[in-house]
Amino acid sequence: MFNLYWADESGFPAGDRGAAYGDGLFETIRMYGNRGVLLSRHLARMGRDAGRLGIPIAPTDLRKACTAAVSRYADRFPNKEGESGWVLKLTLTRGEGGRGYQPGSGMRPNLMVSASPMPAAPATSGVAADVSRVPLTVNPLLAGIKSLNRLEQVMAAREITGELYEMIMSDSAGNLVEGTRTNLLLKGPGGWVTPPAKSLAVAGILRQWVLEKLRAKGEVVEERAVGMADVLGSHCQGLYLLNSVIGVVPVRSFAGQDLPADDGLATIFNPLELLE
Amino acid sequence: MFNLYWADESGFPAGDRGAAYGDGLFETIRMYGNRGVLLSRHLARMGRDAGRLGIPIAPTDLRKACTAAVSRYADRFPNKEGESGWVLKLTLTRGEGGRGYQPGSGMRPNLMVSASPMPAAPATSGVAADVSRVPLTVNPLLAGIKSLNRLEQVMAAREITGELYEMIMSDSAGNLVEGTRTNLLLKGPGGWVTPPAKSLAVAGILRQWVLEKLRAKGEVVEERAVGMADVLGSHCQGLYLLNSVIGVVPVRSFAGQDLPADDGLATIFNPLELLE
Repeated sequence: MFNLYWADESGFPAGDRGAAYGDGLFETIRMYGNRGVLLSRHLARMGRDAGRLGIPIAPTDLRKACTAAVSRYADRFPNKEGESGWVLKLTLTRGEGGRGYQPGSGMRPNLMVSASPMPAAPATSGVAADVSRVPLTVNPLLAGIKSLNRLEQVMAAREITGELYEMIMSDSAGNLVEGTRTNLLLKGPGGWVTPPAKSLAVAGILRQWVLEKLRAKGEVVEERAVGMADVLGSHCQGLYLLNSVIGVVPVRSFAGQDLPADDGLATIFNPLELLE
Repeated sequence: MFNLYWADESGFPAGDRGAAYGDGLFETIRMYGNRGVLLSRHLARMGRDAGRLGIPIAPTDLRKACTAAVSRYADRFPNKEGESGWVLKLTLTRGEGGRGYQPGSGMRPNLMVSASPMPAAPATSGVAADVSRVPLTVNPLLAGIKSLNRLEQVMAAREITGELYEMIMSDSAGNLVEGTRTNLLLKGPGGWVTPPAKSLAVAGILRQWVLEKLRAKGEVVEERAVGMADVLGSHCQGLYLLNSVIGVVPVRSFAGQDLPADDGLATIFNPLELLE
């Protein structure tokens, strides 16, 4: 079990290892009223990745915290016709204690629960993205984990100015890996392409769901490195940004070059059909 | 200026970006009574690296916070004969706000100030260290910064068990880079060797001080990659761990092999002579 903190009541205690070392992980879940989009997948990922970090957590306890969060927060975001919902954030840390970096034995995790309005929706006609000057480094042991170590994403997000919606980060080989808060999916002549999970800082819930959905429809999906030429070459049929809160976002302009953009893929994901 | 938080009073507010993203940095300073070891260097590093992260901070304001911290905390750790002092920790975050990873404009940083007893002193005869299974990844843009993104160090520190004092982390090329909380210095037939600053996750205050001191004495100090063979080969004349709170620690056993260890270098650093 964990200690539960409500963000509208207090922050973590001073000794929490989240603020000290980023020793934890988080989920952001799109909610409509008292139900969440792909909720089970979010909780399963948090449980699995907490296990990878050695933070003991039972998914059933996370589920109970979500139920309590809905009781506390859902009324603040009325589920009216046309409303876009709200965002539930779970931040789980290893807790308090230990000797410096070294955790103590039998530590009790801390869970902070917060609610916020939905971010502004991107234009359905597509958004502009560019290549970040901040390189992305991914520790193989931590690949895919939505941990609290997100300083690279913060530094890249500082470059988002003007009309830009997202910055795409590259690895040391120059491959495009992911946006600050989105995964990448590319449409080419041979089918769909996305960087492999092991190369990702954050392996998104929506990315996994879309890959499964496309494969179930019989479409070809390849997980391989994506270079600038894959996106800017004439064979590119579209680039999409994936984020489970925001949805599927077509990119109409990348690094100053127009891309073919339609919202064809956007319609594959209807959050209202995936409420739990 | 920043908002000041005393760790014995409260934690950061719930919206602080430190706990959310590790969006900040910290210093740990060895204190004796009301004076700190290499205090100016610690504050200068925090000021410089905060600037690299785009967190506005005036070193003079940090200095004032240290003075207030001494008033508040020093009496709890009486400066008796033979006492080892105490540890002052400054944790500086970008503050509250912004949209997700993207910081807001004109944010006011948060500074948390805490005090703790000195950690147990390592044996003067030397300590045992081993190679961590956790690889070290260093983003060139963030190299050397004692940021709050320390999950790799936490994961490596979990491997410190039994008689082990430290785990040494390697880069993807297999070079030994640094310990979880220490920098490395090696004595070889040609002089001293230490991994270059640009390869380091944390460029330690004591490392820089020792390099300057050795060079001032006319000794040869080379900054280059260090491999296992450099340490385990017969030409190795000693391996030392450097940490500004703990001091210079000789390693008598590395990866199960005995090393030549004496406290010759340890005597170069007398914290009592470096109080400010």
